[in-house]
Amino acid sequence: MKKNAFYAQSGGVTSVINASASAVILEAKKYPQIGKVFAGKNGILGALREELIDTSKESKKFIEDLQFRPGGVFGSCRYKLKGIDESLNEYLRLIEVFKAHNIGYFFYNGGNDSADTALKISQISKKLNYPLQCIAIPKTVDNDLAVTDCCPGFGSVAKYVVTSTIEAALDVESMCETSTKVFVLEVMGRHAGWIAGSSVLAQDSHPGAPHIILLPEVTFNQQRFLAKVKKTVKENGFCVVVASEGIKDAKGKFLAESNSKDAFGHSQLGGVAPRLAGLINQKLKIKNHWAVADYLQRSASHLSSGVDRKQAFEVGKKAVQYAVEGMNGVMPIIKRTSNTPYRWQVVSERLNKIANVEKKLPASFISKDGFGLTNKAKAYFQPLIEGEVQSRKKMIYESGKMQMVAKKLRPWS
Amino acid sequence: MKKNAFYAQSGGVTSVINASASAVILEAKKYPQIGKVFAGKNGILGALREELIDTSKESKKFIEDLQFRPGGVFGSCRYKLKGIDESLNEYLRLIEVFKAHNIGYFFYNGGNDSADTALKISQISKKLNYPLQCIAIPKTVDNDLAVTDCCPGFGSVAKYVVTSTIEAALDVESMCETSTKVFVLEVMGRHAGWIAGSSVLAQDSHPGAPHIILLPEVTFNQQRFLAKVKKTVKENGFCVVVASEGIKDAKGKFLAESNSKDAFGHSQLGGVAPRLAGLINQKLKIKNHWAVADYLQRSASHLSSGVDRKQAFEVGKKAVQYAVEGMNGVMPIIKRTSNTPYRWQVVSERLNKIANVEKKLPASFISKDGFGLTNKAKAYFQPLIEGEVQSRKKMIYESGKMQMVAKKLRPWS
Repeated sequence: MKKNAFYAQSGGVTSVINASASAVILEAKKYPQIGKVFAGKNGILGALREELIDTSKESKKFIEDLQFRPGGVFGSCRYKLKGIDESLNEYLRLIEVFKAHNIGYFFYNGGNDSADTALKISQISKKLNYPLQCIAIPKTVDNDLAVTDCCPGFGSVAKYVVTSTIEAALDVESMCETSTKVFVLEVMGRHAGWIAGSSVLAQDSHPGAPHIILLPEVTFNQQRFLAKVKKTVKENGFCVVVASEGIKDAKGKFLAESNSKDAFGHSQLGGVAPRLAGLINQKLKIKNHWAVADYLQRSASHLSSGVDRKQAFEVGKKAVQYAVEGMNGVMPIIKRTSNTPYRWQVVSERLNKIANVEKKLPASFISKDGFGLTNKAKAYFQPLIEGEVQSRKKMIYESGKMQMVAKKLRPWS
Repeated sequence: MKKNAFYAQSGGVTSVINASASAVILEAKKYPQIGKVFAGKNGILGALREELIDTSKESKKFIEDLQFRPGGVFGSCRYKLKGIDESLNEYLRLIEVFKAHNIGYFFYNGGNDSADTALKISQISKKLNYPLQCIAIPKTVDNDLAVTDCCPGFGSVAKYVVTSTIEAALDVESMCETSTKVFVLEVMGRHAGWIAGSSVLAQDSHPGAPHIILLPEVTFNQQRFLAKVKKTVKENGFCVVVASEGIKDAKGKFLAESNSKDAFGHSQLGGVAPRLAGLINQKLKIKNHWAVADYLQRSASHLSSGVDRKQAFEVGKKAVQYAVEGMNGVMPIIKRTSNTPYRWQVVSERLNKIANVEKKLPASFISKDGFGLTNKAKAYFQPLIEGEVQSRKKMIYESGKMQMVAKKLRPWS
């Protein structure tokens, strides 16, 4: 019997999450047992609210072009379902909506929280005897999912960070004689240093930056940091620092939790880069500049990694294939089979191996002094940023029809 | 008689200044009357210190590849020569170095300060009866040079800002239901709003951001700004702000000159974006994110505008042709002859029309409410960001030989 599919995006978006959406929708069309693909408006909230976007109304071109579109095209959300006992009504509502719209396939595109949610929905659907194939599709710029070799979304951010570091370093190098001598780039990564760490690849290009990489995995020591900056400037003329937003001091306090107050006596918004720049100003009196890439890094589809985009597409495709094969409670993950030449394949993994687990940078990736990364790390990162993006003539994105499916149930509250 | 040429880069670099360098060096080879092209190590300081890089030692490929290399490959500096009376010794030293190395052509690649310096050197060389062709080559991301329609370096930054604004807006739009509703992007432009203003082009793509553009030409009014943010979020779900670093309040004080103190009681480094974000937090309590692009925007050669790069190359080429034709005290500038299709040509202009003049956004470019730009502005900006960059397989830059010419004079102090 033909069943519809429900697809939702979850949490922070990436520059390639829509490639997974594109793959799910295109692949689903190949199987007669799958009817329509409904996308949740604003993620899982779309299911709770019965706000389902009928993707069959979009043109083929629109769906294909999603591969090159940053953001989450159907909307995403930060909405975590708690345990089944605590949030029973929400789970029951989801099943109710799925039943009302003849949904037999659930694809949840997110990180480890979403893997957990997909697992729980899979469990409750079994309890309620409602047949539902639950497949989580990996996505996170943080690259912190367990088991998978890497996460779709990460390679593109890494490429952005490497490229930006090389380019800014060439700029600083030019001016350091009479002007800026230190440049600090703040990148994402609240708990794991994958993004900051990937900047190590920039060292292979002239002029060999970054000189200092600050990771959440390494306790920030102000004195050692300043000494390293000073030494680097002395020896090299300038110093480029890539800092993870999540670095903490010895007391475990985020550096970005500034103690500073503004004119109104309110605490200022953080920002690790301005904090480090302030330190360098005050303690070393060295002219510096800083940048905070924030959303620019995770939305930079103009600079996506070809490998990353391909992987995002493949995990979406495999998710549909797994569902058709009758799998449930699994995630398609990336398995690396070779470094040089880089080879990978998509395999399935049980969600209970992935849900709620956070993978940090392994110790073997971090250099002895804690300010750099090892050759082993380089070998890991390099293939993930490879592959060019197709050149886009116009950076014009369409809105899409976003036609909603008629509601059948009472409003959700 | 064969004379050598001296080329120097001045002030903040751009992602295409090396395209001008490449053009000067390649074009100079075509004329038997020009000997070698010496580049100043770290700009004009290289002439004062007699630190001359012999560009003839570099491979042809290295010189050609400069077109795609960010930063200032021979080094630049912030070093302003004052009036001839005040800085006579410096001017005399320059002429002494030029004489010692048989330099008859002086190419100075910079903004309006550099145009002034080139003009003064031209004047003093005449006074001293030392034959020297002085040509200034335009370069500035700020786009604030008089007379020329646009400045090489600007179009690429504009393209970066437009692209980043579109991408980040798609990101924010996806998440605004349950997460970030306001995104603030800080861009360069201390006195003129060309860079921030160019972001208006992003409005032609989905989802129509930026909603607010803050220009140095318009006094910042906190109340009106916050009201506009609030209204935009209410009507639209989210709001994207592009802010120039140079916005000032009614007292003429830069917003980035923060009153805030850090834990040590020191003034914190500024940053307009975190300041605006702090305001939005405190006064509107709306979740927001902010980015400061800083050097990333002006070094982003991976995203250079094809038009910009071509113009940077052409002004370099023309500078050599002007010199060979015997011109002196001029700058090759861009003249726009048509908007659609975009047509331009390079013409010469006297340096006294350009030196020390700063061109701001014309009033006709700024919308009535001061938060946007007009269609006239769009028509101006659009062609400058056109043209794709060639896809680079590897982001690897070489160091170059950077062989110094043997010194002949006493050290300069």
